This record gives sequence, structure tokens and C-alpha cells, in this order.
Amino acid sequence: MTQALPGTLVELLESRLRDIPDFPSPGVVFKDVTPLLADGEAFGAVVADMADRRRGTIDLVVGIEARGFIFGAALAQQLGIGFVPVRKAGKLPGRTRGVSYDLEYGSATIEIHEDSFIGGERVLVVDDVLATGGTAEAACRLLEDGGAEVVAFEAPIELEFLHGRDRLQGRDVHTTLVVRGG
Amino acid sequence: MTQALPGTLVELLESRLRDIPDFPSPGVVFKDVTPLLADGEAFGAVVADMADRRRGTIDLVVGIEARGFIFGAALAQQLGIGFVPVRKAGKLPGRTRGVSYDLEYGSATIEIHEDSFIGGERVLVVDDVLATGGTAEAACRLLEDGGAEVVAFEAPIELEFLHGRDRLQGRDVHTTLVVRGG
Repeated sequence: MTQALPGTLVELLESRLRDIPDFPSPGVVFKDVTPLLADGEAFGAVVADMADRRRGTIDLVVGIEARGFIFGAALAQQLGIGFVPVRKAGKLPGRTRGVSYDLEYGSATIEIHEDSFIGGERVLVVDDVLATGGTAEAACRLLEDGGAEVVAFEAPIELEFLHGRDRLQGRDVHTTLVVRGG
Repeated sequence: MTQALPGTLVELLESRLRDIPDFPSPGVVFKDVTPLLADGEAFGAVVADMADRRRGTIDLVVGIEARGFIFGAALAQQLGIGFVPVRKAGKLPGRTRGVSYDLEYGSATIEIHEDSFIGGERVLVVDDVLATGGTAEAACRLLEDGGAEVVAFEAPIELEFLHGRDRLQGRDVHTTLVVRGG
């Protein structure tokens, strides 16, 4: 299963991601992270890179359902800090606070537990891909309304042509593999 | 946020879980793991315990969507091995293999990528709670049909009165907090 790791993280991601054409809809090329996750050394290198950049600067890691849970929980574990899930509507069992945002077709709602934060916690938001930034921006708003300070956003992959970064201004945004073509 | 950790893992789980009555349906008491996850030291202790028990005995960690992703990814990271997601139908982008199973009302389908395993990989399946065992059993069947050897199942919590353990015979099942009342 394991091949030698390439020299740079960008090369590593290029070698461990898989393009899936026409998913989830025709014309879209989906960046599938499952080959990366299945390679423990490669997955570990991506998480270690995030951990090195954020160690000592954040109090909690927030992961966006569902692939953000995978990278976010591994990172929280690596940093020895707590993890808070942002979930789709109706999934969290306690009293929640939610925010709705527009998708290409229709809208979506994400939620946190309303007692997730005392106030002032410095949080890092993690997802697998920064695409249009709609979900990431909504998550930041939700967390900030809930009392947290969103200091940074991390995703291994960025689809630059969708301009998601523009919607996260004021936070320290880091991505590793930047896809420039549409 | 952080209180001193109690002496045993069972006490730790008792102190960091929250009972939510009538979720997801009337009469059910839901064991909410979010307070545990938010406490980095407690979350780390639960994952370290799993890692100590499984180190050197498995090749991959499989997490069941969605809370199984959180514990499973953290554990894979801790062990330095790969992670494979079992997802709800329609979520995985590549060619999939699925299995349907009965729920109390209706049915559900879970999937893996059909190229997840070469064959013979020793896997540990991770979820947050072992309840009826319906999803866990379906996941084991799916993984075994896909070529993996499911050697073990881990969940921090077991609702013993739902007898899920009976459906996982032949695998090494470990849970920490065993809830005996219904």
C-alpha cells in the first residue's frame, strides 16, 4: 500500500489524491482524499504540517462535517487540544445554534452546540477542500456568533478558481495544494 | 474548560459524556460525546487507550460516518497507519460497494470504495457507540466482502441492553463505558 513519500507536501498531495470526473454533478472534477487517508505516512505528514504551523496559537480545532472531521480530529489529537464538530442540521443532540447559507441550488444549514464556547476561545477551522468558501464562511460566522475567535482556516486542497479565500478575509488561511484550473 | 482527569477511563467517560433525553426520538437517552471531544486531554486519553491495545495488530483503521470518523482518524494518526471511511450511500466519489441493513424504521445503506483493500488487510472498525450493532455488523460484512479481515471493533461506549455485541461475534470487541440500564 505504501510508496515512498515525495519531497514536498504539494507533490505528496498530487500523488495521493484522485480526480473523480462528474462528481457530485456533471462537469465537476472531485478531488478524492481517500487514497491520502489510506496511506498512514502521507496522512500523518499532512497533519504534522498543520500541527507545526498552529502549535500554541489555538485553543480548539473545529472540523466541518464530514471530511473535516477526519483531518480536524487527527490534528486536535496531534496538538493535544479539544475538537468541536460543526454538523449538518439535526445531527447534534443538544441545544444548537445554526446558520443557513446558499448553495448553487438551494440552501444548507450547519449547527454547533450553543454551549460549545465560553467565549474568546481561539479556534482553527479545518476542512478537506476550500472551494467556493460558502460552508467555510458560514462556519466562521456561526462560531463567531457563538463566542469563538476564528483565527485560522486550514484545508489541504484549494480550488483557487472558485475564490473561496475571498470569503474568509481576516483569518489566516492556509492551503497546500492549490488547483488553478477550472 | 479542562478539569483534572479522574482515575479511570470509565470515570473519565462518565464525567465527560452528557445524557440527552429524547434524542433522536422520544424515550431514547442519547450519549453525547461532544464534551469529551472538546477536552483535549480526555479525548487524548481515550484514543491513547485504544492505541495501546491495538498497536502492531492492525494495518488500517476504519471509521463509521460520522462520529466514527472523529475517533477513528485520531486513532489512525496516533498509530501512524491509514484510515478508511465507511460512508452513507452516495457520499463516496469513486466506484463503491454497498450493503443495506434494517433499522428500527426502514433501512440504510453504507458504502466503501471498491478499491479500498488489496485483500487481507487487518482492520479495526471504530465508532463512538455500540448500540444495536446493526451498522457495525453491516460495516464488518461490507469490509470482509471487500477483502479486509475485520479483527476488532472499538467504541468508547456500549449500550449493553441493546445486545450489539452478539452481532459482532468472531471479532475482538472492546468498549469502555458499558451502560447497563435501558
